Amino acid sequence: MKLGIVLAAQPSSFSAIPFKEGLEENVSKIKQLGYDGAELAVLHPDQLNLDWLQAILDKNKLNIIALQTGLVFVEDKLSFTDPDPVIRRKAIDRIKSHVRLGKKLNALVIIGLVRGKGGKGVSSEQRDEWLIEALKECAGEDTSVRLAVEPINRYETEIINTLDDCLKVLGKVNMKNVGILMDTFHMNIEEVSMTKSLDDAKDHLFHVHVADSNRWYPGAGHINFKEIIDALDKINYQGFVSAEILAKPDPVTAAERTIEYMRSL
Amino acid sequence: MKLGIVLAAQPSSFSAIPFKEGLEENVSKIKQLGYDGAELAVLHPDQLNLDWLQAILDKNKLNIIALQTGLVFVEDKLSFTDPDPVIRRKAIDRIKSHVRLGKKLNALVIIGLVRGKGGKGVSSEQRDEWLIEALKECAGEDTSVRLAVEPINRYETEIINTLDDCLKVLGKVNMKNVGILMDTFHMNIEEVSMTKSLDDAKDHLFHVHVADSNRWYPGAGHINFKEIIDALDKINYQGFVSAEILAKPDPVTAAERTIEYMRSL
Repeated sequence: MKLGIVLAAQPSSFSAIPFKEGLEENVSKIKQLGYDGAELAVLHPDQLNLDWLQAILDKNKLNIIALQTGLVFVEDKLSFTDPDPVIRRKAIDRIKSHVRLGKKLNALVIIGLVRGKGGKGVSSEQRDEWLIEALKECAGEDTSVRLAVEPINRYETEIINTLDDCLKVLGKVNMKNVGILMDTFHMNIEEVSMTKSLDDAKDHLFHVHVADSNRWYPGAGHINFKEIIDALDKINYQGFVSAEILAKPDPVTAAERTIEYMRSL
Repeated sequence: MKLGIVLAAQPSSFSAIPFKEGLEENVSKIKQLGYDGAELAVLHPDQLNLDWLQAILDKNKLNIIALQTGLVFVEDKLSFTDPDPVIRRKAIDRIKSHVRLGKKLNALVIIGLVRGKGGKGVSSEQRDEWLIEALKECAGEDTSVRLAVEPINRYETEIINTLDDCLKVLGKVNMKNVGILMDTFHMNIEEVSMTKSLDDAKDHLFHVHVADSNRWYPGAGHINFKEIIDALDKINYQGFVSAEILAKPDPVTAAERTIEYMRSL
């Protein structure tokens, strides 16, 4: 099992990112703890000095496995389903820049809250149409870069809460480089059976996030991670299992406990 | 095990109330399905014609076991922790009218979202102080009526997410008629161990809500309700187990499935 953990390239108000400041120090710490890779939350790919980043990664022999894009919505309020066409265009252009960065880093691009939250007087049909067009255009920017769409629980968005919702959208996008990210924290709220959903996702499962039921590190809540790992083994999942967790009780302890616990399974 | 289910006396935008319209018809349906009691969501106790309500209850031989007060916040924006003292006073006065109605119906009064959501520039110390004073005043209105404070998940409020949070507040209120309502849907998100939390709540547990992990009827998600029932048996819980669930796939089916499933355990 390849283990990853999320870190942020820029400060953020999003709570489920354990490593927020001091990228160089954090990359070193993540490597030292034994992680196989890191997810990078990036707001402005074009503003990121790739030489600087690559030097840090090379020095620490750590790869970026995935790019998080949620900050694009959380900080800059851009989304694929905003009623304003200018905002939708900006969202698509921004994510295409993530795709180009993903190509350079050999990382997949996560489609989380950049899809928007719903509401705003937009019908679900219209919303889906915009979302599907946006995913096609972003995925078409470079078909060698994979996009992983994440079902997110009902409190954070109305759009794609469950694996079933996600499979419907994927069926309409119908591109091989667009797949699924399943997150155990969201699954615990939305999926009827977490193990069955992983099984149902098998043909499109690009990435997995782990957090316990309370979004703390695995082992801090009541999710049965042995069953999760067994379900992933059963479908011969070869991707990363990456911790997107609250920085509680503190970032380093959370990262330590995660790897200890996941390795023990 | 005594089973209850929520119904609303007035229309509401709150989603987890299966029976919303036509009180008389709903009371009859609930009785017919085999429930032992109903929870009533009431916005304005003073506007409720008690003779009319009592006649419906008598005719159907059904008791109101608990009064829900969340509409006071959801519809009228009143809360115990609002920075505006006029709003806090209105919230307290309203809940005191629920206490008086609770006395007449022999029903406990649920303290849910009327505590407020947090934020609004109020410190947690100030908030707790207002909350504790409000609970004392409401509980003092009639000490023979029980108030049940419900831990609610982080997405709905910042105030009292876990049993531990609730026990801290209860310790400061220190009144025998103020206790706890545990809801399995919220517990699934917030409690490290649902069964251990029920055990820890035992000395103050006045009321229990059941909904599955996805807030559908019990059996529609992945909560182990056998373990929940066993945990309640272990602490010799004598109160009601009441369904606060989404009206999915429709109100009657949800109510039918709930009672079938809970009776089967």
